[in-house]
Amino acid sequence: MTHDCGARAFWAAGLRPYHRVIHCLNYQLWMGGVTDHFNLETTGATVFPFGVGNSRQLVRVIREAGINAISSTPSYPRYLEGIVREELGIDPRDLGLELGLFGGEPGLENPAYRQRIENTWGMKAQNANYGVSDVLCNFAAVCRENYQLHFLGTGALLFQLIDPETGEDLPIEEGTVGEMVLTHLDKEAQPLVRYRTSDVLEILGVGPCSCGRTGLRFRVVGRADDMVHVKGINVFPNGIARVLESMVPEVTGEFQIVLDHPPPYAHLNITVESGAQKGAEDQENLKERIAMKLKEELNFKAIITLVPPGSIKRTEMGKAIRVVRTYSC
Amino acid sequence: MTHDCGARAFWAAGLRPYHRVIHCLNYQLWMGGVTDHFNLETTGATVFPFGVGNSRQLVRVIREAGINAISSTPSYPRYLEGIVREELGIDPRDLGLELGLFGGEPGLENPAYRQRIENTWGMKAQNANYGVSDVLCNFAAVCRENYQLHFLGTGALLFQLIDPETGEDLPIEEGTVGEMVLTHLDKEAQPLVRYRTSDVLEILGVGPCSCGRTGLRFRVVGRADDMVHVKGINVFPNGIARVLESMVPEVTGEFQIVLDHPPPYAHLNITVESGAQKGAEDQENLKERIAMKLKEELNFKAIITLVPPGSIKRTEMGKAIRVVRTYSC
Repeated sequence: MTHDCGARAFWAAGLRPYHRVIHCLNYQLWMGGVTDHFNLETTGATVFPFGVGNSRQLVRVIREAGINAISSTPSYPRYLEGIVREELGIDPRDLGLELGLFGGEPGLENPAYRQRIENTWGMKAQNANYGVSDVLCNFAAVCRENYQLHFLGTGALLFQLIDPETGEDLPIEEGTVGEMVLTHLDKEAQPLVRYRTSDVLEILGVGPCSCGRTGLRFRVVGRADDMVHVKGINVFPNGIARVLESMVPEVTGEFQIVLDHPPPYAHLNITVESGAQKGAEDQENLKERIAMKLKEELNFKAIITLVPPGSIKRTEMGKAIRVVRTYSC
Repeated sequence: MTHDCGARAFWAAGLRPYHRVIHCLNYQLWMGGVTDHFNLETTGATVFPFGVGNSRQLVRVIREAGINAISSTPSYPRYLEGIVREELGIDPRDLGLELGLFGGEPGLENPAYRQRIENTWGMKAQNANYGVSDVLCNFAAVCRENYQLHFLGTGALLFQLIDPETGEDLPIEEGTVGEMVLTHLDKEAQPLVRYRTSDVLEILGVGPCSCGRTGLRFRVVGRADDMVHVKGINVFPNGIARVLESMVPEVTGEFQIVLDHPPPYAHLNITVESGAQKGAEDQENLKERIAMKLKEELNFKAIITLVPPGSIKRTEMGKAIRVVRTYSC
């Protein structure tokens, strides 16, 4: 069932038996490795186990083995681009990749980022690998018709939404925003019943997609444990990320919400990396524009502190910690 | 078929569904990784994908996940022992491993090495993973009754032996030594017919084993391309290795055959690492004893040069190059 659902997702994203896909997620103690390898193979595609690291060897294998699809995190192509273009002097488009199957971290929901990958590599960049470690490896992907995640876990999972605060069930209909709750319908070991995933989704559609699939479609709004209430408004770090990404290169896109006292909050203090060092007047102006844009798009009041680019510490996975609590509970 | 044969091999070596086996071969672009993972799983055992490196994390996972079997190269336990005992202060026996499934490099055919692993770890050390990259991942392993490799590729492979020089077919009977030639009987892509493996085997038995298996049994004598003729005698580096290993700690076991002119050879020049620095008289004595032992056991004349321990360069895989040609063809 795991492999069936995973294969449905990769198939929806465009993977076919004629593809020769190189799998560049870590094979160590993680479902992104061996389990996704099985999932990719279940589509009938030929799968090359590559894992992480050795990017120069990867380029050689892509060329020599006639690889035409890649499976990785969405941040990897950006890293690989530097090596391919600057170090090896190759135009990434000349490597012949036509399909990118991405997952494991956010990023691809940003259309500008997607477009940049597609223009650089000449390949379709697909969000193809959405799952929950505790529940099932991969049960959602976008199709080739729109850019909405299709729920593909039918038969394996019962999908429900609840209000993350009250625990109350919410109707599955277009526009509902709620925390995803999953129940295993077919599982040999450790079945979970009404497991709270902490992922907050928005339902984008429940009718058939133009691709022919009939399951519901959604986007990931954020993590319930990262949700902050500001005067009755639910604010997710992902929403702030989306607004800031639209302002690149004035900002880098990195930020942190700093909570210096327990709730309730009338506003949020947000530390934002500016795109470059600026004069005091420019800084004031940028801070105001960020606050205004957040108010317009997400309807809450923000007080912005600007810091130089690179000031906000990234984790080893390249992710920044989005919510920092400086008070003790 | 690949997974069936591989599972037969791991099963013969003692792997059962109650085992929790951690797989410590590289998962990158190699059948030792994903393919062997499938093979292990096909026995019904629970398989943890670990790969290589991160030995300290490995020890933690073995303890926390109740691992009772390990799959790795035979040289890995020796390396791991140092970390477990000296750095972490744990007796390797306390980790609870009961079965070691080894393959990918020679070493385990040496009973002293096997015994050392078994005494140190309190686990059965099994040569469980013999295959040929070009042909099939794993189709031979020792059983629990004797220490002979059982051919387990029935239905997948036709097994033949030839004289490596004349190409003439040899009878499959006890005592025959010849190069293994394999033909695929069941293969979807790239079937091979009478593929010369370069592996020279000795047939140890063709009747049923006391374990109940009826396939033929063999040991690996050496590589046909490493075979050197000395006055009509076929000498394999593996044979020399076995003799030198029996002389540890007077020697380290590392050596190189140096061929300074084209064949024929009346004797072999062999560079041997002594176990420690010695006086000139001791050196002469050791050289004589090595030459005598090689003459006794392998029936050829050797002229020995001693070098200090560590002088012979190892490859990245920890293997030394056994035959060096210093003349140009």
